[in-house]
Amino acid sequence: MAAPRAGTARPSGDAEALVRLARPDMVEVDRLILERMQSTVPVIPLLAEHIVSAGGKRLRPLIAVAAARVVGGERLADAHRFAAAVEFIHTATLLHDDVVDSSELRRGKVAAHLIWGAPSSVLVGDFLFARAFELMVETGQMRALGVLAHASSVIAQGEVLQLTRAHDLKLDEETYLRIIAAKTAELFAAAAEAGALGVEAPEGAVAALRSYGLNLGLAFQLADDALDYGGASETLGKNAGDDFREGKVTLPLLIAMARTAGREDAFWRAAIDDGKRGDEEFRRARELIIGTGALSATLDRAGAYADAAKAALRAVPASPWRAALADLADFAVSRAA
Amino acid sequence: MAAPRAGTARPSGDAEALVRLARPDMVEVDRLILERMQSTVPVIPLLAEHIVSAGGKRLRPLIAVAAARVVGGERLADAHRFAAAVEFIHTATLLHDDVVDSSELRRGKVAAHLIWGAPSSVLVGDFLFARAFELMVETGQMRALGVLAHASSVIAQGEVLQLTRAHDLKLDEETYLRIIAAKTAELFAAAAEAGALGVEAPEGAVAALRSYGLNLGLAFQLADDALDYGGASETLGKNAGDDFREGKVTLPLLIAMARTAGREDAFWRAAIDDGKRGDEEFRRARELIIGTGALSATLDRAGAYADAAKAALRAVPASPWRAALADLADFAVSRAA
Repeated sequence: MAAPRAGTARPSGDAEALVRLARPDMVEVDRLILERMQSTVPVIPLLAEHIVSAGGKRLRPLIAVAAARVVGGERLADAHRFAAAVEFIHTATLLHDDVVDSSELRRGKVAAHLIWGAPSSVLVGDFLFARAFELMVETGQMRALGVLAHASSVIAQGEVLQLTRAHDLKLDEETYLRIIAAKTAELFAAAAEAGALGVEAPEGAVAALRSYGLNLGLAFQLADDALDYGGASETLGKNAGDDFREGKVTLPLLIAMARTAGREDAFWRAAIDDGKRGDEEFRRARELIIGTGALSATLDRAGAYADAAKAALRAVPASPWRAALADLADFAVSRAA
Repeated sequence: MAAPRAGTARPSGDAEALVRLARPDMVEVDRLILERMQSTVPVIPLLAEHIVSAGGKRLRPLIAVAAARVVGGERLADAHRFAAAVEFIHTATLLHDDVVDSSELRRGKVAAHLIWGAPSSVLVGDFLFARAFELMVETGQMRALGVLAHASSVIAQGEVLQLTRAHDLKLDEETYLRIIAAKTAELFAAAAEAGALGVEAPEGAVAALRSYGLNLGLAFQLADDALDYGGASETLGKNAGDDFREGKVTLPLLIAMARTAGREDAFWRAAIDDGKRGDEEFRRARELIIGTGALSATLDRAGAYADAAKAALRAVPASPWRAALADLADFAVSRAA
């Protein structure tokens, strides 16, 4: 069954301009990350390097740096520290998440807990989290540090909420959005806010950049949810089906379940409650998600968040940085279109 | 075999005076703890209350409060926040420790991970850790916050070092002392330092109180190590033998192994490396630990740290608080004598 295109035509966008503009800053952020993950306790730098050097996109520190630059910040030493701290907090949550979910892969590599054991992953996560705060203390900027302390407690609460509700067929959309706002979007928001605060940006810009980060994070997560069912393309990405196989209830599934209520209850119950989640069930779930328009609806929702992210940028002066941040918001969704 | 008394006669001491003096402060600290462990995510307050209300001695926040009072601090609102933050950090490490060690009991209750699962224990630990920093941000006192951020990274490194070395017969005394300094004593030191900084104590007093906390923490831990083999009394406490049964190499064992090198290598290897750690082996280990004087040597070492803790107190003015802190240092060791 061919996937229909998402309803609204959207700009495609990419992350290239932002990555290029931020390159000199990210060299310094990477240097800080490498320097501060060191320890005289042997397993710590090994395990930390395993996950940190796998890289990922460094999207969150990139946003912290861009938020500092887009308001005209020039002395970026503190913003670099906040950017590195954001990456440490993110890495700590990945290490703990993988233990919590018993995941086998992370950033395309064998998950750290399968090499060094779950105890080491938990404790090295704790170490990176503490190091994030040590780095932030060096800036002397309490308000920005407070933003990331608060984000950390919001993230942990979102993780617990997800843990207790993510495999729950009675999950409602509002609770699902609350989970991803806490678990994913809050750190994007805090990264932007702390980056702006780190260069003493005016209040209006700080609030706007926080809003940009929050909406961008929601757009990214919903597009990821859609990508897990192949997005709007006819071919499936290499990690497609992961959420389904783990029995995770995400927005495309929630919408499809609501739209097939009565008719398909037995199928969804068998899949989510009873663990019938083989290739055949995945194909059927994907058909229902595409056929009911749940996938388009999810991408439309992601698009609306991306538009809100771009709208927030109007509060900062036009510049190549602002254009690059707008492009990133479009890219968040176009990846899945 | 009767346990010979430890070599040096020591003052007995108790914690009563300190507990009594600090009662009004601790009412406020407990109120903060209860207030800040709340969350709208249902499992969090339940799990947090399970471990927090089991209580323990609240020794670390007590030390933070006492450090603020002993230097004549009067407006203690910030010191109370640091005290509550110290208890949150401690509780977070206990939750993670129990997952790491697969412990079954904590503070006399079933360990939280056996009720709510290891994932919830990991994530609620993360939540409490983040909440500790949120509380500290409210004080606006960056230097004291930095002390606890640094302590947190030292503790995590100590935990990893213990994890990789604690079951290692080739562990040396120096590494063992490094582990307990990081894992246990550092938080005592940071509690005292942050409490003193919280009331803007003079530099000399801050350094002295840090030294008090560090030495007190070492004395407590070594006395605990001795207690696990019954201390200097003839009767065994209810948790005696736990370290041995878990194959943990502690100072009494290290000293006994060194003093029986050659003769008893096969016994120690069978116990620690091959897991032969039944009741009979425990009795034999205890005999060797007492017979070789390893137990007395451990208590003497603990006593020396307690004396160093008391000596550090000379830098603060004489007062009922100072006397109570000195009593606590004696009590740290006399519990095991």
